[in-house]
Amino acid sequence: MEVHQVVSGAAAGEVPARCGAGLFSALDKVRRALVAFGAKLAKIARDDPRRVAHSLKVGLALTLVSVLYYVRPIFINWGVSTMWAVLTVVVVMEYTVGGTLIKGLNRAFATLLAGFIAVGAHKVAYLCGNNGEPVVLAIFVFLLASAATFSRFIPEVKARYDYGVTIFILTFSLVAVSSYRVEELIRLAHQRFSTIAIGVATCLFTTIFVCPVWAGEDLHNLAAGNLDKLADFLEGLESECFRENAPGENLESKPFLQVYKSVLNSKASEDSLCNFAKWEPGHGNFYFRYPWGLYQKLGALSRQCASSMQALASYIITLTKSHYPEANMELCLKVRAACGEMSLNSAKALRELSEAIQTMTAPSPARTHMSAAIRAARGLRAELSQDADLAKVMHVAVIASLLSELVTQTKKIAESVDNLARVARFKDPEDTQKDVVINVVS
Amino acid sequence: MEVHQVVSGAAAGEVPARCGAGLFSALDKVRRALVAFGAKLAKIARDDPRRVAHSLKVGLALTLVSVLYYVRPIFINWGVSTMWAVLTVVVVMEYTVGGTLIKGLNRAFATLLAGFIAVGAHKVAYLCGNNGEPVVLAIFVFLLASAATFSRFIPEVKARYDYGVTIFILTFSLVAVSSYRVEELIRLAHQRFSTIAIGVATCLFTTIFVCPVWAGEDLHNLAAGNLDKLADFLEGLESECFRENAPGENLESKPFLQVYKSVLNSKASEDSLCNFAKWEPGHGNFYFRYPWGLYQKLGALSRQCASSMQALASYIITLTKSHYPEANMELCLKVRAACGEMSLNSAKALRELSEAIQTMTAPSPARTHMSAAIRAARGLRAELSQDADLAKVMHVAVIASLLSELVTQTKKIAESVDNLARVARFKDPEDTQKDVVINVVS
Repeated sequence: MEVHQVVSGAAAGEVPARCGAGLFSALDKVRRALVAFGAKLAKIARDDPRRVAHSLKVGLALTLVSVLYYVRPIFINWGVSTMWAVLTVVVVMEYTVGGTLIKGLNRAFATLLAGFIAVGAHKVAYLCGNNGEPVVLAIFVFLLASAATFSRFIPEVKARYDYGVTIFILTFSLVAVSSYRVEELIRLAHQRFSTIAIGVATCLFTTIFVCPVWAGEDLHNLAAGNLDKLADFLEGLESECFRENAPGENLESKPFLQVYKSVLNSKASEDSLCNFAKWEPGHGNFYFRYPWGLYQKLGALSRQCASSMQALASYIITLTKSHYPEANMELCLKVRAACGEMSLNSAKALRELSEAIQTMTAPSPARTHMSAAIRAARGLRAELSQDADLAKVMHVAVIASLLSELVTQTKKIAESVDNLARVARFKDPEDTQKDVVINVVS
Repeated sequence: MEVHQVVSGAAAGEVPARCGAGLFSALDKVRRALVAFGAKLAKIARDDPRRVAHSLKVGLALTLVSVLYYVRPIFINWGVSTMWAVLTVVVVMEYTVGGTLIKGLNRAFATLLAGFIAVGAHKVAYLCGNNGEPVVLAIFVFLLASAATFSRFIPEVKARYDYGVTIFILTFSLVAVSSYRVEELIRLAHQRFSTIAIGVATCLFTTIFVCPVWAGEDLHNLAAGNLDKLADFLEGLESECFRENAPGENLESKPFLQVYKSVLNSKASEDSLCNFAKWEPGHGNFYFRYPWGLYQKLGALSRQCASSMQALASYIITLTKSHYPEANMELCLKVRAACGEMSLNSAKALRELSEAIQTMTAPSPARTHMSAAIRAARGLRAELSQDADLAKVMHVAVIASLLSELVTQTKKIAESVDNLARVARFKDPEDTQKDVVINVVS
C-alpha cells in the first residue's frame, strides 16, 4: 500500500525526469563502453600495425577470389565448385607466410591424395552392385576416418600434418559419399582440385607480396627480445638491490620482477613460429634452410635462466622483508659489491648478445662483460673459501634456503587446494568416515 | 677399365647373389621399420586407450552422417547441402566433449549470424541494380572479412570465438557471393543451416554418449598429476642426497631431476582444457559452473614450484660435483638432516594434496606433514641464527650463489648465440669495420 502511494506520488513529475536521467546515464554508459572498446582496438593496432595489414590482406584475397564467381565464363565452366576457392582462402590464410604455406600445401596435397584414394574406393564399391555400393562405401569411410584420426595422435603428424589429415578425411568422405550420386566423379574431383589450387595460390600471392609477415623474422626478434628481458631483470636487480644507496624495499611492485614471466611462457609461440619458419623461402638475411632449430635451443636456455630468476626473485622479496638492513659487516658489503658486478656485467653481456642477434653480427670474441661477470663470481668464491668453516657451511646452507623456499611454496599450494576443496565442495573426510560407520552399523 | 673388369668378374655369380642379399636386407629393413612403427602405434594406444575410442567415434559419426546421402528421400529434399553435414562432422569433432561443444556452438551461431547479415547485404546490393550488385557485394565482403579478421587479435575473441569468426567469414562470403547466382537464397541458407545443425548434433551425440572424454576430468587429473610429479622430485632428492648413506653422485642421470620439466610446460594444455571444461555440462562429480579457474591458479603455483626445483636441481648438480664430500662438520650434518626432513615432509604433504584432489575429499585439516616441514624449516633458521655472524652472511651468500648460477647460465646462452652466429653465418664485426674504412677511403 505504502509502496503504491510512493510510486503514485512520484509519478506526478519525477518519473519522466528519472526515466530521462536513467536513459541518459544508460546512453552515457554505452558511449563510454564504446570509447573504451575503440581505445582497446586502437591499442591492438598500434602495438603491431601488421595486424591491420593482415586484416586488409584477408579482405583482399577474398575479394580477389570472389571475382571468379562474378565473371560469367569462369562460373559456367566450374559451377558450384568455385565455392571451394572461397572456402580455401578463408581457412588457409594465416598471419605469417610460413603458416599460410604449411596450410596451403597440406590442403593441396591432402586433397589430391584423398581424391585419388576416394576414386579407387568408388571403383571397388562399384563392383559390388547397386545394393552393396553404399554399404562398402560406408565401411571405407569408417575405416579411413578412424585410421586417419588415430594418426593425429602420433606427435610428428600432429606437429606438421594435423591440418592435412583433417582435409584428407574431409575430401575422402565428400568424394566417396557424393560419388554415389554424382556421375561425373573425375570431372568433379578435377574441378575441386583446381579451385582449391587457385584459392591457395591467391593466399600465397597476397601473403608473400603484400606486406609479408615472416614467421622466421618474428622468431628471430622473439629470441633477441627474450635476451633483452633477461637483461632488464639483472639491471633492475643491480640498481634496486646492490648499488650503493639502493632502496632495497617495496621490491614486489617493481616491474623488473615481472619481466621474466613472459619469457617463461614463450615456448608455445616459439615452437609454432619455428615450425612455420622451416617452410618459408629465403627472405632478407634468412636463407632457405636457415638453422631455425638453434633458436629453440637458445629459447630453452633463456627459459631456464628465467626460471632461475624466478627462484631468485621470490628469494629477494622474502629476504629483504625479513632482515636485509641488518646486514652491514665487511664481508656482507664485499659480497654485495660482487653481486652488483655479477648482475651488471651479465646484463651487459646479455644486451650485447641480443644486439648481435638483432644486427646479425657475430658477437665480439673479446666478451669483456662476460669475463668480468665470471671473474666476479670466481673472486667471490675465493673470498668466501678463505674462511674454511664458512665455505663448508655455505653450500649446504644454500640448498637448505632453496628447500625452505620450496616448503613455503608447498604451503601456498596447500592453501590453494584448500580453497578449491571449499569452493568445489569436496567431500568432508569425517563425513566419509561417518558414512562408513553407519554402513557398518546398519 | 679396372672397375669394369671387377664388375664383369663378379658378374659370374656374385652379382645375383649380392642383388638377392641386397633385396633381402632391404626387405628386412622395411619389415623392421614397420614393426617399429607398429610398436609405436601400439604404445600410443596403450598410453591412453581413449585415443582408439575417439578414432572409432569419428568414424562412427561420419558414417552416421553419410547415411543422409544414401537415403534417397532426404537427399532429394536437401540436395548438395547434405555435404555440409559431412563437412561439419569432420571439422567440429574434437577429442574432448568441451572442445566439440565449443566448436559446434561456434559453428552453429556463426553460421546463423553470418547468414542473416549476408541476406541483408544481398537485399541492399539488389537495390543497386544489375551492374552495381557485384561491386557492392565485393565491397561488403572486403569490409566484413577485414573487420572480422581484425577482431581475432582481441585476446578474448581469440580464446573463445576464434573458430566462430572463421565460420562467420566463410558463411558470409559464401552466401553473399553465391547469392549473385543462386535465386532461392533463403531456402539455401535454411538448408545449409539445418544440415550444419544435424552435423553438430551427430558430433555431440557421439562425443557425449559413446565413451565421453571430459576436458574437465582431464584438467582435474592433470592438476593431481602435477602435484605427484613435484612430490617425486622431493622424494628423489631426499633419498639421493640427504638420507644417510645417500650416494649423492652421478645425479645428472637420475630420473627425478627430469620429472618437474613436464610440469613447467603444462600451461598451454591446462589453459585449453580449462577453456573447454567451462562449456561442458555437469558430469560425474563435476557440476555445471564448477570452479575450473581455480585449477589454473593451482597450476600457476605448481609451475612456480617446479621452476624453483629447476634452480635447485642445477645447483645440486654443480655443488655435489665440486665439493660435496668434504662437508662433514657437525652443523653441516644438522642442516643435512633438516633438509631431509623438509623434502620428505613436503613430498608427503604434496602426495596428500594430490590424493585429496583425486578422491575429491577435503584435505585433512591436521596437515601433520606440512607442519612438520614448516617446523623443520623454522628449526633450521633458528639453528643458523644462533651463530650471529653466520646468519648475517648467509642470506647474502644465498643470493650470491644464485647469481653466480645465473652467470653460468648466461655463459651457456653466450655459447649458444656463438654457435648460432657460426652456423647461420652472421656478419663478422671486423669485416663490417673494414667495409666502413673502405667506404671512407673511397
